[in-house]
Amino acid sequence: MNRDYLHGVWSPALTPVTPAYEIDHARYVQHVQRLLSQGCHGIALFGTTGEATSFSSAQRIAALEAVLAAGVAPAQLLVGTGCAALADSIALTRHAVAAGCTNVLMLPPFYYKGVSDEGVSAGYQAVIDSVGDARLGVYLYHFPKLSGVPITHGILNLLLASHPDQVRGYKDSGGDFAHTRELIERFPQLNIFPGSERYLLDGLRLGGAGCITASANVNAGAARRVWDAFETNDDNADAHQATATSVREAIEQYAVIGAQKALLAKVFKDPEWNRVMPPLTTLETDQVQQLDAALAALDFKLAA
Amino acid sequence: MNRDYLHGVWSPALTPVTPAYEIDHARYVQHVQRLLSQGCHGIALFGTTGEATSFSSAQRIAALEAVLAAGVAPAQLLVGTGCAALADSIALTRHAVAAGCTNVLMLPPFYYKGVSDEGVSAGYQAVIDSVGDARLGVYLYHFPKLSGVPITHGILNLLLASHPDQVRGYKDSGGDFAHTRELIERFPQLNIFPGSERYLLDGLRLGGAGCITASANVNAGAARRVWDAFETNDDNADAHQATATSVREAIEQYAVIGAQKALLAKVFKDPEWNRVMPPLTTLETDQVQQLDAALAALDFKLAA
Repeated sequence: MNRDYLHGVWSPALTPVTPAYEIDHARYVQHVQRLLSQGCHGIALFGTTGEATSFSSAQRIAALEAVLAAGVAPAQLLVGTGCAALADSIALTRHAVAAGCTNVLMLPPFYYKGVSDEGVSAGYQAVIDSVGDARLGVYLYHFPKLSGVPITHGILNLLLASHPDQVRGYKDSGGDFAHTRELIERFPQLNIFPGSERYLLDGLRLGGAGCITASANVNAGAARRVWDAFETNDDNADAHQATATSVREAIEQYAVIGAQKALLAKVFKDPEWNRVMPPLTTLETDQVQQLDAALAALDFKLAA
Repeated sequence: MNRDYLHGVWSPALTPVTPAYEIDHARYVQHVQRLLSQGCHGIALFGTTGEATSFSSAQRIAALEAVLAAGVAPAQLLVGTGCAALADSIALTRHAVAAGCTNVLMLPPFYYKGVSDEGVSAGYQAVIDSVGDARLGVYLYHFPKLSGVPITHGILNLLLASHPDQVRGYKDSGGDFAHTRELIERFPQLNIFPGSERYLLDGLRLGGAGCITASANVNAGAARRVWDAFETNDDNADAHQATATSVREAIEQYAVIGAQKALLAKVFKDPEWNRVMPPLTTLETDQVQQLDAALAALDFKLAA
């Protein structure tokens, strides 16, 4: 882990939606601030959990500006900017960097499948070169189950050869810790984040950088206790990890976005939080009750 | 087949790209006009073959306006407007209809996978309702190998219940004719287009609406001869189909977009045509030579 690059427990924030399918800025800002107060080192805006790809570039830019206007420090933000369209990726990355958010999380273009390492790398290179700002730090986003485009070792080798100072990390949402471990071993110059708090402690012990995990929208405190225990050589690290993992496992029985939005709606008595963007759907009422019971059995309480 | 809806041989136009990764309007207009002169009943702008998802909404809107400004009739255009982001799909569809292009080809939102029929339908319904124009005709775009989101019978049933006058057709790029046949049989109110000229005649004999086929960028004439022979009960329909199929089979040995761009570059001595958008890559020189040899062996000559 490179401590000059992003590290720690990061939550990809859920994005609240208005009845007109716009981003609800007020609830968004409030949620980001709450996650920071619950122990997240930082927030990934516009990841998969944030339904990023369901919003236009203009909507994403306006929402980022609302978060910054509320006083959130740019250094505590990792901004998702990877789109299917190259011009959108460039526009979002340029805007983020100009606004002081120099760290971006980039999906590869995700429509075409079976594409070559050279083709995927060319897209990333075009964005970095177009933005042309040495401050830009790119975190590559590997989520093959959804994007259909894995970030391979071949792609990493090409990008580390062409842009070694700007390619700084990797979010591994593949769900296979053997894959994460190999990345940590083979690419020590990159900060590697497992995409689940389940692998937080195992990753840290190998040299991983923390985690960027969807379920930190409700499970941030537990994940942060794992981080702090590891940093201080506290003997309770494994016990904290077991707690964090049990909550994660309860949540991931359901669609993680709808489930967490339902939990926020319930705890804050704010049904507006239930809304998701098409093509996702809200959790069924009986699923919410089951999830709630499962979390109660774990003695889990969502911090307000 | 409903003759009031789109039907015939349609080509999803390739999109020429400038060195700055912009759409090359001059070559684009020229190519659309050439395809119409070669016998296409109409042109699908911004399908998979047109690398639609690799361009921003603004780029797509400007290119459509260039085509219309050149005098191409809106009735001869089917405009791709389905994006990952709902707001983009709405903006593109609204623009197309306002410009007189009332027929749109819509991918479902294609990032999230394993989504429900209700979620996908809600996206289409939101677009149709937001545009709010009775002239709008929606052709659903089924390409599960790339989008990861099939257009199921369940989705069709939901949309035909909610918007029977606006949901008018289906492009089946699944590559499985049994699937196309079942659609034609079960949804006679829709115009069903196989996504390959290979199935043109078989589809027409069952009541299909023609084809919308990538390889019509170079194979339009042969496909049109199949259509005309079927319409006039000409005994040569099967022979024309065999010719069209042989060319299709030669091309689809390669990446269809890069291969056809390479053929255009070669025939028109215009290397600019070779350029593709990331994450795609241009065809290797030896592949171009092999394809050229295969087409020469079929006595195929690309019309200028």
